[in-house]
Amino acid sequence: MGWMADETGLEKNAANHVALTPLSHLRRAATVFKDHLAVSYGTHRKTYGEYYQRCSQLASGLVQLGVKPGDVVATLIPNLPAQAEAHFGVPACGAVLNTINIRLDVATVAYIFDHGGAKVVLVDSQFLELAEAACESMDGPSPILIEVGDDQAGWPASGKYTSYDKLLNSGDPAFDWILPQDEWESLALNYTSGTTGRPKGVVYHHRGAYLMTMGTLVSWRMVLHPVYLTIVPMFHCNGWNHTWMMPLLGGTAVCCRDVSAQAVYNAIHYDGVTHFGGAPIVLNMIVNALDEDRRTFDHQVEVFTAGAPPAPATLAKIEDLGFNVTQVYGLTETYGHITECYWKGGDWDALDKPEMAAIKARQGVAMPMMEDVVVRDSDHKPVPLDGVTQGEIAIRGNSVMKGYLKNPDATAEAFAGGYFNSGDIAVQHPDSYVQIADRAKDIIISGGENISSVEIEGVLMAHPDVNLAAVVAREDDKWGEVPCAFVELKPGAIADEAALIAFSRQTLAGFKAPKKVVFQELPKTSTGKIQKFELRKIARNL
Amino acid sequence: MGWMADETGLEKNAANHVALTPLSHLRRAATVFKDHLAVSYGTHRKTYGEYYQRCSQLASGLVQLGVKPGDVVATLIPNLPAQAEAHFGVPACGAVLNTINIRLDVATVAYIFDHGGAKVVLVDSQFLELAEAACESMDGPSPILIEVGDDQAGWPASGKYTSYDKLLNSGDPAFDWILPQDEWESLALNYTSGTTGRPKGVVYHHRGAYLMTMGTLVSWRMVLHPVYLTIVPMFHCNGWNHTWMMPLLGGTAVCCRDVSAQAVYNAIHYDGVTHFGGAPIVLNMIVNALDEDRRTFDHQVEVFTAGAPPAPATLAKIEDLGFNVTQVYGLTETYGHITECYWKGGDWDALDKPEMAAIKARQGVAMPMMEDVVVRDSDHKPVPLDGVTQGEIAIRGNSVMKGYLKNPDATAEAFAGGYFNSGDIAVQHPDSYVQIADRAKDIIISGGENISSVEIEGVLMAHPDVNLAAVVAREDDKWGEVPCAFVELKPGAIADEAALIAFSRQTLAGFKAPKKVVFQELPKTSTGKIQKFELRKIARNL
Ligand SMILES: Nc1ncnc2c1ncn2[C@@H]1O[C@H](COP(=O)(O)OP(=O)(O)OP(=O)(O)O)[C@@H](O)[C@H]1O
Ligand SMILES: Nc1ncnc2c1ncn2[C@@H]1O[C@H](COP(=O)(O)OP(=O)(O)OP(=O)(O)O)[C@@H](O)[C@H]1O
Ligand SMILES: [Mg+2]
Ligand SMILES: [Mg+2]
Repeated sequence: MGWMADETGLEKNAANHVALTPLSHLRRAATVFKDHLAVSYGTHRKTYGEYYQRCSQLASGLVQLGVKPGDVVATLIPNLPAQAEAHFGVPACGAVLNTINIRLDVATVAYIFDHGGAKVVLVDSQFLELAEAACESMDGPSPILIEVGDDQAGWPASGKYTSYDKLLNSGDPAFDWILPQDEWESLALNYTSGTTGRPKGVVYHHRGAYLMTMGTLVSWRMVLHPVYLTIVPMFHCNGWNHTWMMPLLGGTAVCCRDVSAQAVYNAIHYDGVTHFGGAPIVLNMIVNALDEDRRTFDHQVEVFTAGAPPAPATLAKIEDLGFNVTQVYGLTETYGHITECYWKGGDWDALDKPEMAAIKARQGVAMPMMEDVVVRDSDHKPVPLDGVTQGEIAIRGNSVMKGYLKNPDATAEAFAGGYFNSGDIAVQHPDSYVQIADRAKDIIISGGENISSVEIEGVLMAHPDVNLAAVVAREDDKWGEVPCAFVELKPGAIADEAALIAFSRQTLAGFKAPKKVVFQELPKTSTGKIQKFELRKIARNL
Repeated sequence: MGWMADETGLEKNAANHVALTPLSHLRRAATVFKDHLAVSYGTHRKTYGEYYQRCSQLASGLVQLGVKPGDVVATLIPNLPAQAEAHFGVPACGAVLNTINIRLDVATVAYIFDHGGAKVVLVDSQFLELAEAACESMDGPSPILIEVGDDQAGWPASGKYTSYDKLLNSGDPAFDWILPQDEWESLALNYTSGTTGRPKGVVYHHRGAYLMTMGTLVSWRMVLHPVYLTIVPMFHCNGWNHTWMMPLLGGTAVCCRDVSAQAVYNAIHYDGVTHFGGAPIVLNMIVNALDEDRRTFDHQVEVFTAGAPPAPATLAKIEDLGFNVTQVYGLTETYGHITECYWKGGDWDALDKPEMAAIKARQGVAMPMMEDVVVRDSDHKPVPLDGVTQGEIAIRGNSVMKGYLKNPDATAEAFAGGYFNSGDIAVQHPDSYVQIADRAKDIIISGGENISSVEIEGVLMAHPDVNLAAVVAREDDKWGEVPCAFVELKPGAIADEAALIAFSRQTLAGFKAPKKVVFQELPKTSTGKIQKFELRKIARNL
């Protein structure tokens, strides 16, 4: 663009340029929303004034442990108050927060400890053994463990390590936060889910998280003081950055150690929860809840769902129960959601339920903080907006990672062509809504035709006996690849392979129907996604 | 702060770092909210798809006129669609938007043309004579005039200059917007109101306007699709940046050429207006509206008021009429409002009306996009939060100007001590709410005591006969300065000097009561503020 003819004296200075960081939200909330409930978990109820102080004590305590700006501090904690506090307390001492998935195996945790280089790890008592075992199988030096007990849940601190409470007590509640000088400084380190292989270490900048919070609240129609239920694990893209957003809105974060339909219904009924996010598997859980686990409520609950394509059948059912579901889409690399299936109203409101659900099954349009989300062909040219031509989703905007830690090659590949290349194959509809066909790695190429595994799964899941289905490619001498289905049946259901193949053929073209159906429990990542690379191994050996 | 031990490959690139600019909001809205009403003015009703195209045509037309990135393009237009379009079309060709106050005198407009160096001016037909006269009295070369006719209001284009419609028609609706490469590039040039003297040219950066829109919607509790009435002139801090905010929310901007109580009520009743901002004088107008100008409505209208301290009496009355008023505070230098009198609820909801109004008369706390708003003493140290100790409001955050155009000395002075020094004298209450006592230049020092002119004005305005009051210092041999009041009475009212002085003494300490009362119309800036420097001149010669 360009500058004015005379810009003398118009440079940035301390008054007019402040590094963007989500830490600013809590600093402001500590004053503006001082007496408002910030975090609640059973008997643990802290106002913003208290929350800010505890985060300051944590930051101060970490400094005393020797943590320096730029160091990594990890956590192995469920969605509990200490995990929320780590989101502010860790960066408030200049460190980088590395929330680790509590459901990972020892080897992967050890890999992350080594690769990320955490100096300190805050560990929930339930996962202490995991952390200890991981420390033992590390190559490099072990981190300092701090134990976070959860008396309410029957996981009191063992006493083997310095407790979180003690660390906090040692900290100065008036500690002066170390704020980023440059908004490009690193805020968090998040390992991908590992759906397609070994997890990669995604680095977030302060700027991206700040802008993520700003854009999200618009899409989610949030006004001041939402009551947010922590279902999305905070160790997954930092819970889509929602913990950082809450103080901006003076919202309350209701913590939830174990996710169940009953826990969700209770939180809505008793705590007045207005918003939560969750993978489609959580929606399933709500729809299929036992009667005794359900609770009544008279407000509409706003739900974001992402992580995998939600089944249209589930979407159609959940709305009648008082939930408004918006599908969003994103990756660890994009801080969580960056598209939303914005509901346009108008003509759409007149559609019948299945048609509505079909629209809600789209991933939608760019959220406000994103500059461009577009489907491109292999030459990085946009595909036609025809709802048919497939290409790869490419993403540009301020909530895109800095890159993969210590992996400049993978980073350069991900950013080829000036966009972040998602690895997800999609079409773009005439109104520009994006719809995912499949992951690039999961597309089945049979007789030269692309088959979306997601499409076949959608058909199988509409069968009354099917609880969950996943379809992968299996090598075939004649066709190159053919679809092979793996199915979890509902309790007591009786459908067999022939029945499901016949059922598929009622709606699918012959070459798309699965050639084989295997009944077994499906291997999932700890965020509830099906690990197709495991299924492909099984299919290969059938 | 600090960087991680190894940040190889984690640099900014085109995918993960996009310059913040409010232009992105409209680019996104053109797709996401394509068919939603964006701008309405009588028979002029444009969707976001059309609005975006018209702005593109404007940008393209300006390029054809020879406008280059960094050039200034000015406007002299009321709150009409063309003025809104200029907010996007002018920066979309890389130029800097200089909206000029249509109520200024010829000499000041000529000064601004010269000082800002506008290449092109878009002029409403009603103000064509003003623009022509200003061109004639300029020192430098005249800008190109483009005439914006308003047939609906009886101001058709004269035909003497290229019309705005013709300029648009000459432009390419598919013009590729020139976006800032650096978010610090200049977006707008706004001259201050001139309340305290010659207006100064305040330069805005793209980053600041973007963040202003993001923070404002939180404070104003806006969800998608607000209906916004343009009362605050867009030539005043770009209407507090609200025009830039609307496409972020898919909102509708209802244009209003002339502000009157009837126009406001009509817009609420017929267009479903949900939000507007206005100076306290607009609130007065609504409260004092004739019965035949009032209209019914059954939703609550959210109002931001700023520019001068609103009288508690007005605040108390307007709430019963269906308006929820939040006082905000800011300056041209801060893109408009940067504090808000956030209503805490709780104990506050139990107060009686006058107590509530007294709280609402405070300027409040920093809005979300600001880092710090604090009252400081002359050594730049924060004053105690006691509601008594006065100091100057100092401001730090991303919605603070780059500086004053071609005035590095005034810029350096304004930014002394790492904050923007507002020139407003205030106290800070124990809950940190800021309350303005007076402008630094308006404080009256009598016998060594500080007297707030605002306090005396509040008392005078509570007298049933008084319509408007302003108090300034008058030199006095004995006391140094004494308060001198200027008053506009209500039609038919009879109060005289003695009566008003006696009335003041009922509530004010003797030394604070005005020593002299003059009855006359008060000189106002075009944003409705009283020009005390004019009154001081009169007082001097009494
Ligand atoms: N709404 C959605 N619909 C369909 N798929 C989605 C949706 N949201 C996310 N996904 C899938 O999830 C992926 C992002 O998941 P995440 O970053 O948690 O790790 P992963 O990609 O599963 O793991 P890894 O990158 O280690 O293989 C996307 O690339 C996409 O394939
Ligand atoms: N809510 C408010 N209460 C009291 N005063 C306010 C409020 N909002 C704004 N003001 C006053 O308005 C001033 C900002 O006005 P603006 O930038 O439009 O020009 P000005 O200061 O009146 O003109 P100039 O700077 O040319 O003298 C503030 O400095 C403050 O004195
Ligand atoms: Mg991935
Ligand atoms: Mg001023």
